[in-house]
Amino acid sequence: MIKSPVKRKPGRPKKNSDTVFLDTREELIKAGLAALTIKGYSSTGIDEILKVVQVPKGSFYHYFDNKEAFGTELIEAYGQYFAKKLSHWFYDTDTSPLNRLLAFIADAKKGMQKFEYQRGCLIGNLGQEMVALPEGFRKQLIQVFNDWEMKTAHLLDEAKAAGEIAKTINTAQMAYYFWVGWEGAVLRAKLEQSGEPLDLFTSGFIALIKPTPH
Amino acid sequence: MIKSPVKRKPGRPKKNSDTVFLDTREELIKAGLAALTIKGYSSTGIDEILKVVQVPKGSFYHYFDNKEAFGTELIEAYGQYFAKKLSHWFYDTDTSPLNRLLAFIADAKKGMQKFEYQRGCLIGNLGQEMVALPEGFRKQLIQVFNDWEMKTAHLLDEAKAAGEIAKTINTAQMAYYFWVGWEGAVLRAKLEQSGEPLDLFTSGFIALIKPTPH
Repeated sequence: MIKSPVKRKPGRPKKNSDTVFLDTREELIKAGLAALTIKGYSSTGIDEILKVVQVPKGSFYHYFDNKEAFGTELIEAYGQYFAKKLSHWFYDTDTSPLNRLLAFIADAKKGMQKFEYQRGCLIGNLGQEMVALPEGFRKQLIQVFNDWEMKTAHLLDEAKAAGEIAKTINTAQMAYYFWVGWEGAVLRAKLEQSGEPLDLFTSGFIALIKPTPH
Repeated sequence: MIKSPVKRKPGRPKKNSDTVFLDTREELIKAGLAALTIKGYSSTGIDEILKVVQVPKGSFYHYFDNKEAFGTELIEAYGQYFAKKLSHWFYDTDTSPLNRLLAFIADAKKGMQKFEYQRGCLIGNLGQEMVALPEGFRKQLIQVFNDWEMKTAHLLDEAKAAGEIAKTINTAQMAYYFWVGWEGAVLRAKLEQSGEPLDLFTSGFIALIKPTPH
């Protein structure tokens, strides 16, 4: 175990005893999100999270029963964080529905660039390593995808109403297709340390849904 | 360390001293391929490979300097095994080029079903966890994808010549698109333990490359 440089009284800290401990929980979540978007669940140890946040083990176990409980909270937190991000872009009525999708994609690409294509998608990472994870994560991960897909389908419905995509498009199906392919593109972007796979998948997706020329 | 139930003389076995040791190497590779297609590199320990093959640690280190060297061989072996599989389906001149692609996809799906969607793609798994892997794996993984893409582009060229796909298709780009999206579909198929993501990605891909109706 890595010793924490921050001195704290031994034993379980009292819940909500002061805001320091509330911040600690948030910091643990933040460090966990960073680690899991980079390298997934299996390769992430609790000790390295403690080292980042500089708290002793007892502090971690005050908030989370074990690594699995921590993982469950991280999936939840990331799902919500990302759902909020999607809503931010998808409800921007200043621009057309299809342009909102493109704005989200451009932002996601910028996010990956910022971290030199080291950070991917937490849900994609954990989906990939699911067989080695606690079985309870499976349903939770699928639910997160389904939530994002519902938001995306709704946006595609708007794009269809605006005549930006073909009238024949099954929007629920194409939203699912988008997230299936997008996760592949994120995987490849991390591997190649380049945004090219994101761009290429996007062009293909847009070509697939656009109205056929008359 | 897990003790092997198979008794062997201690010490380093002589290289090529008999065929038993040649088989051992193959068995180690086989067990490694199974483990890495299921759960990737980081979650796989040498000890569990030894347990499957039932040989002592010394036997492993006779063939491989360390886990990294083993990983390098596994990427190489999987890349070649899969390239052979692609050639088998893509050069089957009894059927049309596009049907050859569909036959490969059907076979890949059957392969995933057979292992209850637990085994994915070794290259996709390692691509996803690349940031936690020895840096030397990156180039090797990209090269494997590039090899598969070249074979796929060649097949798409044939499909274009046969009028099965649009004349405007950039076959190299679409082969790249195929593997980007396909890895996303394999990831999702493992997560959902279902072939639906493979089917959906395939329909979208075919719709994208087919000739526009006149």
